[in-house]
Amino acid sequence: MTTARRDTYTPETLLSVAVQVFNERGYDGTSMEHLSKAAGISKSSIYHHVSGKEELLRRAVSRALDGLFGILGEEHARVGRAVERLEYVTRRMVQVLISELPYVTLLLRVRGNTDTERWAMERRREFDHQVADLLKAAAADGDVRGDIEVRLATRLVFGMINSIAEWYRPGGRGMDDREVADAVTQLIFGGLRKED
Amino acid sequence: MTTARRDTYTPETLLSVAVQVFNERGYDGTSMEHLSKAAGISKSSIYHHVSGKEELLRRAVSRALDGLFGILGEEHARVGRAVERLEYVTRRMVQVLISELPYVTLLLRVRGNTDTERWAMERRREFDHQVADLLKAAAADGDVRGDIEVRLATRLVFGMINSIAEWYRPGGRGMDDREVADAVTQLIFGGLRKED
Repeated sequence: MTTARRDTYTPETLLSVAVQVFNERGYDGTSMEHLSKAAGISKSSIYHHVSGKEELLRRAVSRALDGLFGILGEEHARVGRAVERLEYVTRRMVQVLISELPYVTLLLRVRGNTDTERWAMERRREFDHQVADLLKAAAADGDVRGDIEVRLATRLVFGMINSIAEWYRPGGRGMDDREVADAVTQLIFGGLRKED
Repeated sequence: MTTARRDTYTPETLLSVAVQVFNERGYDGTSMEHLSKAAGISKSSIYHHVSGKEELLRRAVSRALDGLFGILGEEHARVGRAVERLEYVTRRMVQVLISELPYVTLLLRVRGNTDTERWAMERRREFDHQVADLLKAAAADGDVRGDIEVRLATRLVFGMINSIAEWYRPGGRGMDDREVADAVTQLIFGGLRKED
């Protein structure tokens, strides 16, 4: 039975179970025992796939980071006026957050007790800086208001986007990633107030 | 020594220590032992002031909730066009979050394992609904864009405001509550994009 189950396990399915457990119990509060129970396979079977829980964490946050950094390599993020690129990146951040919801949620909760956590936080900061640079460039072009300090504006924009991870549930209320991405982009760039 | 120390303790200072410990360790992870150590007084001295940790939680989240609901009773939140009232409430929410930072932080982290936590979550939802109603009224007046669903817009606005609790530190970088409140209000109502 154990053998049969193990055969159906791939590093991918193990990762998806681990991310769920990390998000529920917190990374620090998760033991190999918890992972073994949740996955329904023995600890030694888990060690067959990975060196331990830190490797699972690294793979999980890497998936989120690859998704986010991938955006910056896309054509619309690289070519055009800064404000248009920023709007594109904002929309895509929402989409990646939703499509990789458990992985991005885990990334956002990482607090820095292990090397892997500190590395993940450093990479997150790098991503934030690149988006802040885009905002700075858009302000220099005169396309974005100059009366909000760039770092503060970046924090608030990320705050709004990242908060989606707190309540968005796939399939819930039939709201898809496009609707949420549209709303965020309209709100951040156009504001709530109707133009006369 | 213990007696002398206890004499300097008031329910207010005990509350402020408890909130700090709750925010650091999580409410579930905090024991009376932790509170006693952090406050530097015996457990029996704590029981002299309160019935237990749930009472401290109730007092702490009540302080945050009183601050937030207090906004809705203020004149500028009650009189005038809905969009102006909404803008006033938004600005004041940022100010209350900053002035009552540890208490609001605790309120935002409450998850619902005890009666007090469930009560706090219910009160938070009530507050959210009242702000959502204001947004609905502003949309009905034609002052706020109608292309973002009210519940989604409310969630995103709260997401941005509540995220401030994640990074704001009093005295840090010399940014005061006014600067943050201005930025949030400008961003939410006017958007990033410069008007031509």
